[in-house]
Amino acid sequence: MAQMNELESTDLPAVHPLAGDPVFDLHLGGKMEIRSSVELAGAEELSLAYTPGVARVCEAIAADPEMTQYYTWVPNTVAVVTDGTAVLGLGDIGPAAAMPVMEGKAVLFKQFGGVDAIPICLDTTDADEIVETVVRLAPSFGGINLEDISAPRCFEIEARLKERLNIPVFHDDQHGTAVVALAALKNALKVTGREPGATRVVISGAGAAGVAIAKILLGAGITDIAVIDRRGVVSSDRSDLTPVKRELAALTADRNGRKGTLADAMNGADVYLGVSGGTVPEEIVASMAADAIIFAMANPDPEVHPDLAHKYARVVATGRSDFPNQINNVLAFPGIFRGAFDVRATAITEGMKLAAADALAELVGDALSEDMVIPGPFDPRVGPAVSAAVSAAARRDGVARA
Amino acid sequence: MAQMNELESTDLPAVHPLAGDPVFDLHLGGKMEIRSSVELAGAEELSLAYTPGVARVCEAIAADPEMTQYYTWVPNTVAVVTDGTAVLGLGDIGPAAAMPVMEGKAVLFKQFGGVDAIPICLDTTDADEIVETVVRLAPSFGGINLEDISAPRCFEIEARLKERLNIPVFHDDQHGTAVVALAALKNALKVTGREPGATRVVISGAGAAGVAIAKILLGAGITDIAVIDRRGVVSSDRSDLTPVKRELAALTADRNGRKGTLADAMNGADVYLGVSGGTVPEEIVASMAADAIIFAMANPDPEVHPDLAHKYARVVATGRSDFPNQINNVLAFPGIFRGAFDVRATAITEGMKLAAADALAELVGDALSEDMVIPGPFDPRVGPAVSAAVSAAARRDGVARA
Repeated sequence: MAQMNELESTDLPAVHPLAGDPVFDLHLGGKMEIRSSVELAGAEELSLAYTPGVARVCEAIAADPEMTQYYTWVPNTVAVVTDGTAVLGLGDIGPAAAMPVMEGKAVLFKQFGGVDAIPICLDTTDADEIVETVVRLAPSFGGINLEDISAPRCFEIEARLKERLNIPVFHDDQHGTAVVALAALKNALKVTGREPGATRVVISGAGAAGVAIAKILLGAGITDIAVIDRRGVVSSDRSDLTPVKRELAALTADRNGRKGTLADAMNGADVYLGVSGGTVPEEIVASMAADAIIFAMANPDPEVHPDLAHKYARVVATGRSDFPNQINNVLAFPGIFRGAFDVRATAITEGMKLAAADALAELVGDALSEDMVIPGPFDPRVGPAVSAAVSAAARRDGVARA
Repeated sequence: MAQMNELESTDLPAVHPLAGDPVFDLHLGGKMEIRSSVELAGAEELSLAYTPGVARVCEAIAADPEMTQYYTWVPNTVAVVTDGTAVLGLGDIGPAAAMPVMEGKAVLFKQFGGVDAIPICLDTTDADEIVETVVRLAPSFGGINLEDISAPRCFEIEARLKERLNIPVFHDDQHGTAVVALAALKNALKVTGREPGATRVVISGAGAAGVAIAKILLGAGITDIAVIDRRGVVSSDRSDLTPVKRELAALTADRNGRKGTLADAMNGADVYLGVSGGTVPEEIVASMAADAIIFAMANPDPEVHPDLAHKYARVVATGRSDFPNQINNVLAFPGIFRGAFDVRATAITEGMKLAAADALAELVGDALSEDMVIPGPFDPRVGPAVSAAVSAAARRDGVARA
């Protein structure tokens, strides 16, 4: 129907507060919209898509909830849920100001995974309230992607939602980053001739990403890990650890007796994985092992600038698109949800995340080099490869329903 | 980007449980999807629409929340919220089974109003929990359309949300039906030469629609109203009234001393408005005034079949598309939200609803006749006329912000 064109949201004002700035011009009117996949050309279509026809679809679902998988948009949707407390590097800017990032995420979900993502910005930062709210929303969505929720609440919220819900729950700031970092690290170890079990890793940052990276590395056989927070190595000789950090210390530094300062941990380390921001002094970078690996992932300012990193390291990665080896979550989350949805997975398991990392790492193939340890975000093979690997892993892990 | 085509949700299985049935074939894969309104062709667009560019949009909103109106999709979105307790005529079928109706509503919102509507089916029927959940979701949406929530909880939920939120809140089962019924009734009164103040009305049904119709008729100057529930006229001589019905009795039957049975109320009545289902016996229909008006709006089975109604009434309307004078909510809700959004209204007032009804009634113009008291749902003038009238009323009522 063309008759409503004059009312559509695409009629945007040419004059707006920040007109002429390319970022704001592009954001005018938002970055997404709803489209009908049926067209109602007249009364007959209306009677099929809406009353009275639709009543029969409702009755079919009431009789057999599995029919939701066929006759609604639910199985292809993910709620992108935030409370606005840890948005990009901006911190706690609140739910309204978080929306442009959530819309951007939805755009990426659709373009790179064919997933319909809906931004849900919550006006509460209370973990109990967030959990209850998402549980109540859950019948509307096929999966939950938690986003930009600050640590340590993000860990508890994710764990409780996974327990309560029978659909994929994924905190992208944790697991998306961890999957892509692991993929790139696997290739970096290959380039530098290292074995996972004999590699000493320092992770700077004990927030969402740092904790998840530590856990996925452990799952991938890398066991000598020191996680660093503002006070140094997270080790159980410290008296100031939160419960999450106590658990982390036992899983990482304690196993190899690592403790002390960032400088202590970096001295002779093979790998530095930065997800903390801040700057690592040059003398500390210089103390790493020969052929070191540095992933300085803070955005927009890497913890070690690539020019400096290259003086001491053989493989350097950042979160930026203007240097080689970009660690970009978009390589992971669209394909992970696509792969989970394709087999109607009831959860996203550790095996599915490891499979996604393997698939990403393998895609590099013969192109593997110091400056090519991870595919680029617009590599068209990424989505299909990740989703296929994730679907297969879901079947192996017994969480696939199709 | 075409590369992800093989992963898109539009690749639907040809074989599905109810294949071959046109209703289920049409519903396969659901009726809606998310579309990006920006295209990310490469790294540069990605850096504008997502990191790092998007951070500046977030900061602009954090500094001035009004920027949400320009640079997000929020001001054009409405959450279609249900708990699945009163879905069509099916009753309490739960949130999952309600989804096809909510998707249908979203399709209508887009096609007839250019509004982006998102179905939210809640896994709770507790009024407090519904209110809290919607309040927490509110930063994500420009308006709230409550849908298929059973009475009397719907009244309390709507009232509390209107009080707590600064965006339009509208319960379509109440107000959408009331607006369209009033529009048609205004024209029916004209056809039969009646004045609103001298018209005796019986409303059968004291649920969401019945209560809202009673209230909008009062706002339009029709004051002799008897609302009927299963036990007869809702009047204060009864001892079994809920608080909502006590208030209703005082506003309606008590003012003219109406009481007793449906038969008592119908004897000599000018207008019958049915939103109750069931069947009115012929002898009761026959007892109405000459040139009576009968709107039998229950779907799919009108309270008085049009063939019978025409024996005693001059103007007959139903909820069905296969008879003249269809009372269809789609004539109201898309234009009402479009009109509210166009002026960034903070609420939907009684004045805006009355203006929508007037605009609908006036559209019939010279075509006015017994069989044409309301425009058809595909009349292209409806959306623009309703939205313009609603925007103007919002300005008059002081709730417009643009």
